Amino acid sequence: MTITSEFARYIIGTTTADIPANVTQEAIRSLLNWMGCAVGGSRHPAVERSLAAVLPFSAGPDCSLIGRHERVDALHASLLNGISAHVLDFDDTHLRTLLHPSGPVASVLLALAERQRTSGREFVLAFVLGVEIECRIANAIWPGHNTDWYITGTTGVFGAAAAASKVLRLDEKQFMHALGLASAQAAGIREMAGTMAKSFVHGRAGQNGLLAALLAQQGFTASDSSLEGRHGFAQVFASRHDVETVTEGLGSTYEILQNTYKPFACGVVVHPVIDACIRLRNAHHPDGSDIEKITLFVHPRTLELAGNQSPQSGLKSKWSVYHSAAVSILDGAAGEHQYSDERVDDPVVRSLRERTAAIPDTHIKDTEAKVSVKLKDGRVIDEHVVHVMGSTENPMSDQALAEKVQALSQGILPSHQVAELISTCWGIMDLEDTSRLVRLSTQT
Amino acid sequence: MTITSEFARYIIGTTTADIPANVTQEAIRSLLNWMGCAVGGSRHPAVERSLAAVLPFSAGPDCSLIGRHERVDALHASLLNGISAHVLDFDDTHLRTLLHPSGPVASVLLALAERQRTSGREFVLAFVLGVEIECRIANAIWPGHNTDWYITGTTGVFGAAAAASKVLRLDEKQFMHALGLASAQAAGIREMAGTMAKSFVHGRAGQNGLLAALLAQQGFTASDSSLEGRHGFAQVFASRHDVETVTEGLGSTYEILQNTYKPFACGVVVHPVIDACIRLRNAHHPDGSDIEKITLFVHPRTLELAGNQSPQSGLKSKWSVYHSAAVSILDGAAGEHQYSDERVDDPVVRSLRERTAAIPDTHIKDTEAKVSVKLKDGRVIDEHVVHVMGSTENPMSDQALAEKVQALSQGILPSHQVAELISTCWGIMDLEDTSRLVRLSTQT
Repeated sequence: MTITSEFARYIIGTTTADIPANVTQEAIRSLLNWMGCAVGGSRHPAVERSLAAVLPFSAGPDCSLIGRHERVDALHASLLNGISAHVLDFDDTHLRTLLHPSGPVASVLLALAERQRTSGREFVLAFVLGVEIECRIANAIWPGHNTDWYITGTTGVFGAAAAASKVLRLDEKQFMHALGLASAQAAGIREMAGTMAKSFVHGRAGQNGLLAALLAQQGFTASDSSLEGRHGFAQVFASRHDVETVTEGLGSTYEILQNTYKPFACGVVVHPVIDACIRLRNAHHPDGSDIEKITLFVHPRTLELAGNQSPQSGLKSKWSVYHSAAVSILDGAAGEHQYSDERVDDPVVRSLRERTAAIPDTHIKDTEAKVSVKLKDGRVIDEHVVHVMGSTENPMSDQALAEKVQALSQGILPSHQVAELISTCWGIMDLEDTSRLVRLSTQT
Repeated sequence: MTITSEFARYIIGTTTADIPANVTQEAIRSLLNWMGCAVGGSRHPAVERSLAAVLPFSAGPDCSLIGRHERVDALHASLLNGISAHVLDFDDTHLRTLLHPSGPVASVLLALAERQRTSGREFVLAFVLGVEIECRIANAIWPGHNTDWYITGTTGVFGAAAAASKVLRLDEKQFMHALGLASAQAAGIREMAGTMAKSFVHGRAGQNGLLAALLAQQGFTASDSSLEGRHGFAQVFASRHDVETVTEGLGSTYEILQNTYKPFACGVVVHPVIDACIRLRNAHHPDGSDIEKITLFVHPRTLELAGNQSPQSGLKSKWSVYHSAAVSILDGAAGEHQYSDERVDDPVVRSLRERTAAIPDTHIKDTEAKVSVKLKDGRVIDEHVVHVMGSTENPMSDQALAEKVQALSQGILPSHQVAELISTCWGIMDLEDTSRLVRLSTQT
């Protein structure tokens, strides 16, 4: 039995009764967080412009766009909702691989839920399984893979294809071909950092996965060995990989339990610094002009991914540990406003960024940061975060997640609708028809 | 000035008057060959099934499907015509890189020609420029790239984006973003050999390139350094590359002059063997049962790419030098019929495949082959092809190309319509509106 056929049989054979309660609960938390991010991102220029480009190519108003009133076909809804959900860099993170698991899977399932009646139980089952496939593939190829590729682009397409295949009830052969067609579309080079194309890669992963399943459903063929073959995904996308173990423990371990949610609107590698800076600011209330120098001690990956000291735009500043330190000390927050073009150009922020140094330290874990602020009066104030808020060791509570969704929806959806959206999402396992959940996320 | 901006300025600034007559003529030959392949492939199950999958997602009947009566939107027409044109493995080849240059570029330009009035001169200009970009990028990354990727999938998307950007009259910044969005979608692992997914990769390259241009037109942003950046296309897709020289001689050399057309319906690396086998058969008329053994002496790449001695389907047999030798000796031909499932399963063909040996020889050029047939009566008959028919040294004549198109169109379009299609294509530079050419390629 090949890896691809093992995945197929597992997904086809798994039912809601097989999924443990804590897994279901984490899936619902992931989904709620994802919907909040999609509402929050729905007015970003990346969404406006991509919608303007593809609207003339949308077949019909089958599916909702989260946070908006326009309707498009299911393929385009998968793309556009996927862009919305990622564009603020506020979505979930599978910390081991830096994959954003919900994106491609949720956007496709929501689109399909408006084309064929899907119960909450079916939806959550397909969501758990889609996330499982993409995270397992990601586990097999990181970390070498991540240098060059957006891992959500390259592995998310498999998760989306798997989830769609489950809902469309593909047979084993079709399922294998869907994964093959996913691998044939896997894409997304990391050169797109700080541009709209990064969120496009994330949205396209969902859309491509759905297309893969739709083609396979019609008998369109692809390789049966797309993951493990000589020119298959693992071999081509990662010089070192561990693809042989990718199906080990299927059905007994669940990767969604490793999912985390961001309290801050930027790259997750920056979060420990932000957490430390906000704590430090709340304890000491230093004024920007009192600060001589900020020194950050961080995990080396933080500087590899977010080492830009002079970001030129809001999007780019989300990957600057210097900007993040400066704004979180000045504002005591790291939300969307702190990553606006306006805040990036602010002379006070710029000056404080320039007085910030960052030192990579191999003894510091990826959930950890130390911050030392030297004041002009000679005093030094320090903060040390061991487990950043939002990590698996210090997760966001259900309440904090709901508040994040409320904050992201402000000015976009009425607060009573958001309250209903949140409570419907918590109760998704009782929904006969999940299209209701989708409708609650749109402008009426 | 970056490579990406150099490409942008060259394409924006080039007019029909800049293009030499022999370049225009080769572009027209490429286009005619491409249209013939697309008509010939238009009833393949890969086209039927992909059409069935995407028809519910087509926005409207703006654009034609070559060889068929259905109409779809421009993005889907680019995909489906691209699949048709490649599925027979009969399309053109840029021999140095094994790129099939016309596919992604022509499918996009034909689709756009039905959305906005495009003269023959504009069409051919955009076609030459699109082909130039993709071939230059391909030159920079082969041969290492080709082991893992379908080079038409990965570089064709740039050609399609460039051609669409020219016709859509994008400005320099938009053009750079279109190339960036192309690079973010570059895909197509070689594991898909012998399945419909291979032609999907080729069709999707065109569709993705068009989407890149449409997004960029609306101001959707992407990296400005998608080709040359640290995590850019060249670096990620080829361990060794030559991207610095990719713009050298722009406007003075034209890669389309290196384009070749296949007289046989299979992988180009097999052609010298077929040419030799047909010559040998026509000279000696050996009967299959008289043959004890066939020995092929070939360029090593022939066996790397087409070394499958026991293909399991018609599609897979196109990449079997053994099957190709057997059928061309038995039938004196290597057209679609010789690569049917039926012919693959024929016991006489199978037996002769099994009596065929292939020996890689580094002294043999890629346009060359030697074939030695040992008969049961003890005689040995040999043939040696130095420059295979269809190579740049021994190109197909205009007449042979027209006959290829006629043969491919048989049973699909009426012969008088094919005659008009061919003459209209030769006269494309006089067309005020190229949508006429597209209509002539469809069922009315």
